Amino acid sequence: MNSQTLFPTLAPTIEWRDGKLLLLDQTRLPHEIVVEHVADAAEVWRAIHELRVRGAPAIGVAAGYGLCVAMQDARTLPVAQFRAELERRAAWLDTARPTAVNLSWSLGRMMKRARECDTQDTAVLYDVLVDEATRIHEEDIALCEGIGVHGMSLIGEGNGVLTHCNAGALATTGLGTATAPIYAAHRAGIAFSVFADETRPLLQGARLTAFELQQAGVDVTLIMDGAAASIMSQGLVDLVIVGTDRVAANGDFANKIGTLGLAIAARHYGIPFYVACPSSTLDFSTATGERIEIEERSGSEVTHLAGKRVAPEHIKARNPAFDVTPHALVTGFITERGIVEAPFERSLKSLFAAEGSAA
Amino acid sequence: MNSQTLFPTLAPTIEWRDGKLLLLDQTRLPHEIVVEHVADAAEVWRAIHELRVRGAPAIGVAAGYGLCVAMQDARTLPVAQFRAELERRAAWLDTARPTAVNLSWSLGRMMKRARECDTQDTAVLYDVLVDEATRIHEEDIALCEGIGVHGMSLIGEGNGVLTHCNAGALATTGLGTATAPIYAAHRAGIAFSVFADETRPLLQGARLTAFELQQAGVDVTLIMDGAAASIMSQGLVDLVIVGTDRVAANGDFANKIGTLGLAIAARHYGIPFYVACPSSTLDFSTATGERIEIEERSGSEVTHLAGKRVAPEHIKARNPAFDVTPHALVTGFITERGIVEAPFERSLKSLFAAEGSAA
Repeated sequence: MNSQTLFPTLAPTIEWRDGKLLLLDQTRLPHEIVVEHVADAAEVWRAIHELRVRGAPAIGVAAGYGLCVAMQDARTLPVAQFRAELERRAAWLDTARPTAVNLSWSLGRMMKRARECDTQDTAVLYDVLVDEATRIHEEDIALCEGIGVHGMSLIGEGNGVLTHCNAGALATTGLGTATAPIYAAHRAGIAFSVFADETRPLLQGARLTAFELQQAGVDVTLIMDGAAASIMSQGLVDLVIVGTDRVAANGDFANKIGTLGLAIAARHYGIPFYVACPSSTLDFSTATGERIEIEERSGSEVTHLAGKRVAPEHIKARNPAFDVTPHALVTGFITERGIVEAPFERSLKSLFAAEGSAA
Repeated sequence: MNSQTLFPTLAPTIEWRDGKLLLLDQTRLPHEIVVEHVADAAEVWRAIHELRVRGAPAIGVAAGYGLCVAMQDARTLPVAQFRAELERRAAWLDTARPTAVNLSWSLGRMMKRARECDTQDTAVLYDVLVDEATRIHEEDIALCEGIGVHGMSLIGEGNGVLTHCNAGALATTGLGTATAPIYAAHRAGIAFSVFADETRPLLQGARLTAFELQQAGVDVTLIMDGAAASIMSQGLVDLVIVGTDRVAANGDFANKIGTLGLAIAARHYGIPFYVACPSSTLDFSTATGERIEIEERSGSEVTHLAGKRVAPEHIKARNPAFDVTPHALVTGFITERGIVEAPFERSLKSLFAAEGSAA
């Protein structure tokens, strides 16, 4: 199931068609469905920089194809000049969002493939770039699918599933991460309902998660972040699934602000709390969550709503973009290779540390 | 300390001056400070109905004076006709906000006083009404002061205090309820800081609490509701104080949505969690929180922000306005007669059940 079958009326997040890169403009959702044809390097840079494509996996895929687009007007150059331009333009694309790990990762992978290809033919080298971008794309779809297949076993008939922010199809080119078990269970004909936290300050839950689940025909109800504990107390939530931006070696993980409070409330009510986690998000080099640096964003995201000031002038505001949830509050990680339970230090490493030994 | 000394640059919430009722228009805060002269019955009704005056205690005070204002053009009538008009106009004012308990309570008290006064002189009867309204007003100030005096002992030098919604001076005519210990400690020269939850959907924390604390010179930082657990996890919160709309006999209490999640997080981190509770909010006739009916408000408060739709069309939304926090999560109730600790069923009743025996 790709995003086309998930959302019959909605364009895919990212599409490569006849050598053209098409992006669904996420800044205009849910009000307008606009597909943008990104035609040159400057447009690729702007699309990433301005969050028209967002979500770490989707940014990675867009960067791969984006580098191909950026090189299209250089295809008439001799290969040495093409390679020089490739280095220059990849480095420049990498500046579109300095903090997005998948941007660097994807461009690095594209460049490694290009350097390893010793052709003297520019057209062949360009085709190799398109091939690598396509692989990155296909791997992203497969990774989401894996999380979906393993995670759907957690969702039973009549269950209520709560999620936070958008670790959804819109953040990837497949089923999403936190949403993958939801879509897989929905596809299997299981009847259940989802509660989507609106996710202040940028409202990815209201704007994106509620939208994509609705488009796919999933029974979804939007709630405010502060209502989650109350909804849990009423027995309406059987399972929480969230995404993650980074998982430390011991299982502590960072995710959108508000996740920690959800995890504490879920524990209080004895509700299983799962983290959908592609292996690309595991960071064995970070020992514990205490080592994860938390981005503090502008207070204006708190003091303003929809462009209008709501708080008094000169008020102090704190706006941590993420929080760190300790592993003790996690029931399990849903990965593309299976569900991992505590003790996470051992279980995560045994599944992923020796790359190539599993899968 | 009345609100005039608290907020030297801000008008009082409610003022009765030379027979005129002046209201600070709360719908225009924090952007504009507008004092409205409410000159007849229809204007009183609209001011309450349109939430220009809000907060249960403030509504009660406004209703008392409002009834006086409503009767001003009837002072030339013979006393029998004046009494008939009084009954009619009080009943009509009572329809301004059907769910506000303090509105009925205040008007009922005004009418009881009028009925008990057997004068044949309309002017005397009118003066009795003004006297009763003034008493309601003075009692509200004293009640806030009592909560402040008892609660300030909880706030130590360098502490971080977290609060939710606006149980503030703006909701009363004095120090507020949840804010009373904060103002009393500030007045006593204790240096501490306050975190104010923005309180979706109507943002009373951002619009009102942050505003009034800032006006009073209290060190206040605005945060999103979803950031509270993270702020607690960083050791920045020593104490949570919230208000309440109703306390059941066993100590379960209703308050603005989001309070339950805060209480669970506070318990998780071992942070004392107090409820500022004027005796007027105790409801011994309700045995437990399960009996408290929760108002579900329009989903449009969740799907729209600052008048703009943020969620997709036709999305389901749940919008409980309040949640119920079980007494087991409460460290104590701060009342005008002292701080009450568990077991609450006994301690609340012993302090308040036999009216007149204490105080």
